[in-house]
Amino acid sequence: MSLKIALAQINPLVGGIDANAAKIIETAIYARDRRHADLIVFPELSVTGYPPEDLLLRPDFIAHAARAVEHIAAQATGIDVVLGFPDNYQGKLYNSAAVLRDGAVLSRYRKNALPNYGVFDEKRYFFEGDQTALFTLKGISIGITICEDVWHPGILARNREAGAELVLTLNASPFHAGKIHEREDIIVNQVKALQLPLVYVNQVGGQDELIFDGASFVVDSNGEVVFRAEEFSEQISVVEFEGNRPLRGTCAPLYNEVSSEYRALVLGIKDYVAKNGFQGAILGLSGGIDSALVLALAVDALGADKVEAVLMPSRYTQAMSLEDAALEAEALGVKYHTIPIEPAVSAFTDMLAGVFAGTARDTTEENIQARCRGVILMAMSNKSGKLLLTTGNKSEMSVGYATLYGDMAGGFAPIKDVPKLLVYELAHYRNSLSKVIPERVLTRPPSAELAPDQIDEDSLPPYNVLDPILERYVEQDQSAEEIIAAGFRREDVERAIRLVDRNEYKRRQSPPCIRITPRAFGRDRRYPITSGYRGI
Amino acid sequence: MSLKIALAQINPLVGGIDANAAKIIETAIYARDRRHADLIVFPELSVTGYPPEDLLLRPDFIAHAARAVEHIAAQATGIDVVLGFPDNYQGKLYNSAAVLRDGAVLSRYRKNALPNYGVFDEKRYFFEGDQTALFTLKGISIGITICEDVWHPGILARNREAGAELVLTLNASPFHAGKIHEREDIIVNQVKALQLPLVYVNQVGGQDELIFDGASFVVDSNGEVVFRAEEFSEQISVVEFEGNRPLRGTCAPLYNEVSSEYRALVLGIKDYVAKNGFQGAILGLSGGIDSALVLALAVDALGADKVEAVLMPSRYTQAMSLEDAALEAEALGVKYHTIPIEPAVSAFTDMLAGVFAGTARDTTEENIQARCRGVILMAMSNKSGKLLLTTGNKSEMSVGYATLYGDMAGGFAPIKDVPKLLVYELAHYRNSLSKVIPERVLTRPPSAELAPDQIDEDSLPPYNVLDPILERYVEQDQSAEEIIAAGFRREDVERAIRLVDRNEYKRRQSPPCIRITPRAFGRDRRYPITSGYRGI
Repeated sequence: MSLKIALAQINPLVGGIDANAAKIIETAIYARDRRHADLIVFPELSVTGYPPEDLLLRPDFIAHAARAVEHIAAQATGIDVVLGFPDNYQGKLYNSAAVLRDGAVLSRYRKNALPNYGVFDEKRYFFEGDQTALFTLKGISIGITICEDVWHPGILARNREAGAELVLTLNASPFHAGKIHEREDIIVNQVKALQLPLVYVNQVGGQDELIFDGASFVVDSNGEVVFRAEEFSEQISVVEFEGNRPLRGTCAPLYNEVSSEYRALVLGIKDYVAKNGFQGAILGLSGGIDSALVLALAVDALGADKVEAVLMPSRYTQAMSLEDAALEAEALGVKYHTIPIEPAVSAFTDMLAGVFAGTARDTTEENIQARCRGVILMAMSNKSGKLLLTTGNKSEMSVGYATLYGDMAGGFAPIKDVPKLLVYELAHYRNSLSKVIPERVLTRPPSAELAPDQIDEDSLPPYNVLDPILERYVEQDQSAEEIIAAGFRREDVERAIRLVDRNEYKRRQSPPCIRITPRAFGRDRRYPITSGYRGI
Repeated sequence: MSLKIALAQINPLVGGIDANAAKIIETAIYARDRRHADLIVFPELSVTGYPPEDLLLRPDFIAHAARAVEHIAAQATGIDVVLGFPDNYQGKLYNSAAVLRDGAVLSRYRKNALPNYGVFDEKRYFFEGDQTALFTLKGISIGITICEDVWHPGILARNREAGAELVLTLNASPFHAGKIHEREDIIVNQVKALQLPLVYVNQVGGQDELIFDGASFVVDSNGEVVFRAEEFSEQISVVEFEGNRPLRGTCAPLYNEVSSEYRALVLGIKDYVAKNGFQGAILGLSGGIDSALVLALAVDALGADKVEAVLMPSRYTQAMSLEDAALEAEALGVKYHTIPIEPAVSAFTDMLAGVFAGTARDTTEENIQARCRGVILMAMSNKSGKLLLTTGNKSEMSVGYATLYGDMAGGFAPIKDVPKLLVYELAHYRNSLSKVIPERVLTRPPSAELAPDQIDEDSLPPYNVLDPILERYVEQDQSAEEIIAAGFRREDVERAIRLVDRNEYKRRQSPPCIRITPRAFGRDRRYPITSGYRGI
């Protein structure tokens, strides 16, 4: 007898319980009526979106989610619906899944393995379940697991022992480069060992700094991936089973690394703007590579008519920078304004002349220029309701090569988790689709243009040295000695580490980014500002 | 036989392992030689300071702490030393205590109860221990517990069952108003029930947003507090025991609520400035109550010669505001500058005239003024190495009545967790010690002075209505309906909640504060920026 299972790879809105419930009902009815599915599976915490963070501490929020589950059960009949929600059971909160059948909750599963590392805080909110929860449909015994559960071999094995012939997994598994291979490998190996077919449904969409990449899939008992949904987009798919054996369907190919990173960044901007109700985006264009990339990402996410650019030359801005910035805007069809910052810089210089009398020129004066640009961009953002995007990259944010309230001013920092070398790769990738960034921008040495003839390498090691040091220190927790032993100069390593440590206060006030590496500057890196630790 | 136990209520530096080890050794030798103590007890994680956050994920950091413990054991001989450190045991990290005797580790205890709520993330780092660890000194069997352990009755009882006649508790228990009573009550009740005397040693000092208030104490088996150390200062005390019975010592009186809040704020500023190596502090003085209070706090923390004030009048600043600001600076002996912001405001207005042509005046123009002040203050902070203090209070930060990169610009936000009504109480309290804030500042209606004749109540409900609504919503997780049922007008409640929800993005970019309530805007309130939840 054939069994049809729908994989609902949806993009919920965190906290948007009523909207999510409506989407779940609509999707279930579509799967039932148009696709003749027997069962539809939604992602982890699909009723609330993932992660709801401290909304989970509010009793009214939990009660609201419970009412939504009842409402869905009443509306989405004639099909088994498996969804995720936070469930208050006997005074304890669980990260749960429910099977809804014939207007009621048929059974509940409570997540066994709660991640509390990296970006995850699940032990802050939830108690651990310790049971399996099988249900039967068309004679097949089906087990349920939630996300982290399937990274722990014991839990799938327990389902097998309990008699499961097929397992469903509800997920909100965040993206970083390469994560999808890690994810499929771990699961495929277990499935193969246990001979237990598995249906994996992942959330898709951007939520603050996190990207959920979708790529839901089905594995047969031999460990073969017989179906895979698209990465980075909503998709409702139906996979047919003979008994517990899934029939081969379409397998969306996986994007290569740079392409998946680019798509993640586009989705992140798109969802942050849409879900927060902005009219579009605005950014400062310097003629440098970083703002060129952010402009291209913003246009690909929102469309050229929703994006506005501002050129803000100073006395240190070279003519070619202005030319290139204008070319970038024109190539993408984006409206741009030119507002020289000199009048404001002069005003501040005069106003501060008294208190600064007798002091030497230092980075203070450079910061004033960056902050004048921040004031202009924020004013335009305030007036227009457009989101101000910052254009700083991860290398700069690591070492503090950025001005607080200057170029760091903005509501969202799309490339804050993109190291400088990857900025170049992404720019080349974008140009390979269609040429939008002038060649000169890709080849001239990077400069902040805040002082005469300044280039980044005056203040920092070259990026092909700096970036690998930063990756080892920030993402891999390597010590100075380990990094030096790997072949880097002590001087470069110590300088980089000192700068990273010293600039935690700046990062703490930076806007959220889009996480594309295994460790961004966000929920997954929680450092004290006040720290006496010198690992050098 | 008499037993002398030293309580080492120290102020460690998070991450400053070598400095902390030196202080532990010096303190132990002092207690041994000058106070003839047999045993000295240090706070939780005293070797690393608390909380080290993600430094705990670095293998070099853990190894460094382990070497420090060996070094302390070798140096601090002739006295039993009990201290806290992160201990990697068989590949698992524990929040541990060690008893050092005769140059070696005599025994180790691994914290049983790991807090993972509020400001705490201990399950992110540590495994749970499940054993007691008793040691014997002068014939007395002594148990060890760490902080959260003693909030769980079962753990003290287990020590009693294992034969403990006395229990030591190593703590890093953060302050909020009223916490000390909660803490002593819970422990005294258990001690009384178990007839088990207890020595409670707490860390003291400021660490980013957290204040540790000290107030270490000793309880006899009848549950009587027979000794208490000072709140908010370092203190090495020795308590003598006959058998397991502590002899009565001095009990430092507890400060009343407003006085303890004031002292917490002073300590927070003092430690943030000192531990981060700033030359002093700078702030904008508006003539309003908030900046008047922050000025007084800063002077009490750092001394008048380390504090600088800036008056930045605009066309909307009333003469009395300038007069009062000057009077405040003079009353406290603080150097101040006056820098009118008009030239910069005019420059921006002209520069933006083109892009703003045909638009109506709105808060954009108010924000420009606030941001011009931010640029001036940050320039002075950059040039002088003085920490810029922001002056916004918790009521403003809740509803977003503040300008990002304007009055929110700064490195530390001392009163970000102080609601407006409490700002008045603290100001009155400070004036009761010596009159430093002019009467008129305490009585005139609060105004941002960013538009003609503006007062806060034009935009917000009166603070005696707003503050209790915010406390219920932000600190107690009450729903709109619950707050309305408690007697507040629906209109005020819905407006306040809408503003709190909408301004998460601003708070995310604000500087760290000093936590004095049960829930500040920091580690203890983790809300999504992107959220569709409308609890109204």
